[in-house]
Amino acid sequence: MTTYGLLLFDHAEELDFVGPREVFHVSEQLRGDSGSVALIAEYPGLVHCAKGLQVLADHTFGDHPPLDVLVVPGGWGARHVQVHKPHVTDWIAKIASRVDWVHGIRTGTFLLHTAGPARGRRVVTDAAFEDELEAHGDVTVMRDEPYAVDGNLLTSRGLSAALDSALWLVSRLHGIDHAHDVCSAMDYKPRVPSLGGGDLARPNH
Amino acid sequence: MTTYGLLLFDHAEELDFVGPREVFHVSEQLRGDSGSVALIAEYPGLVHCAKGLQVLADHTFGDHPPLDVLVVPGGWGARHVQVHKPHVTDWIAKIASRVDWVHGIRTGTFLLHTAGPARGRRVVTDAAFEDELEAHGDVTVMRDEPYAVDGNLLTSRGLSAALDSALWLVSRLHGIDHAHDVCSAMDYKPRVPSLGGGDLARPNH
Repeated sequence: MTTYGLLLFDHAEELDFVGPREVFHVSEQLRGDSGSVALIAEYPGLVHCAKGLQVLADHTFGDHPPLDVLVVPGGWGARHVQVHKPHVTDWIAKIASRVDWVHGIRTGTFLLHTAGPARGRRVVTDAAFEDELEAHGDVTVMRDEPYAVDGNLLTSRGLSAALDSALWLVSRLHGIDHAHDVCSAMDYKPRVPSLGGGDLARPNH
Repeated sequence: MTTYGLLLFDHAEELDFVGPREVFHVSEQLRGDSGSVALIAEYPGLVHCAKGLQVLADHTFGDHPPLDVLVVPGGWGARHVQVHKPHVTDWIAKIASRVDWVHGIRTGTFLLHTAGPARGRRVVTDAAFEDELEAHGDVTVMRDEPYAVDGNLLTSRGLSAALDSALWLVSRLHGIDHAHDVCSAMDYKPRVPSLGGGDLARPNH
């Protein structure tokens, strides 16, 4: 069983967590391990996302299960609010040190930079914020790549890329045949990535 | 201003409404008309989606604004529950008769068939349920097409297709240049459709 934990916070971008969540959920369903994809918020209560979607998280920082994968979405709230909350960045740093994989989605990379896991790493982020992230220093921002893998840190750049990077991770964790089954179940044709994991058909990491 | 209303119900597929919602929301933001994309549920309270996401709708059947576009997502709840609720199918039929466009996502086509708008039309649905929909009769199920347009009824087949069909609709409503702006803002590269609206670059309906 693989337990995925997706951080949720006010003004998180909806598709940054709903897209990868779908990939991981379908993967666990196909593997007979349904129920190990958790949305985790700092506190209980409704979360108001970047474009107004109101979502209830499954767990809080205080009651979530042990995780194998930590997923950090982006959005206005990531860059402007969560990066300034030590309770959140400390939690990210602590969990990141325990999981097998850390997966940053778009501007979620800013949170992973502040918290530590993206320091000194090669990463991608939302195309509109590449200069801003690079200005923070101690990070190599890859441009024009859908996603990047550096050690156990996987970051993705855009909307489609977040699905593709999640699929790359599933193929890495559970094999290429399984990843193709997930694509079939979702009726989704992944794009050929050009960085990090290589083609979905030939993972080279 | 274009007002989009997306039906929400228990066991609706998450990406069936979150994906198109993103397209329409970005479109309205770029056009300076933010706030006219509404999630509408039969009753107040949390909705439990097909893969466990807990979402609060913006409106109920009793208090939503007048709509220009009605969007009906799919999911287990569409095929097994909502089709048997006259209060829901009557609402769909009533709203569909008033809007400019009706947009069915994946198995949302089943609901539109029961409610009336898909009767006698050419539609697509989730690949796994094409035979089942065809068995209901009085509908032409197009196979292996990402989406279909018949009159003012737009239906889409899969996860990527739901984004592409929503983008087709935005290009139809607000022009091809605007649709490309939406794609850029989302960092999403639409797939070339093969049915209905033709290529996104050359809408022919």
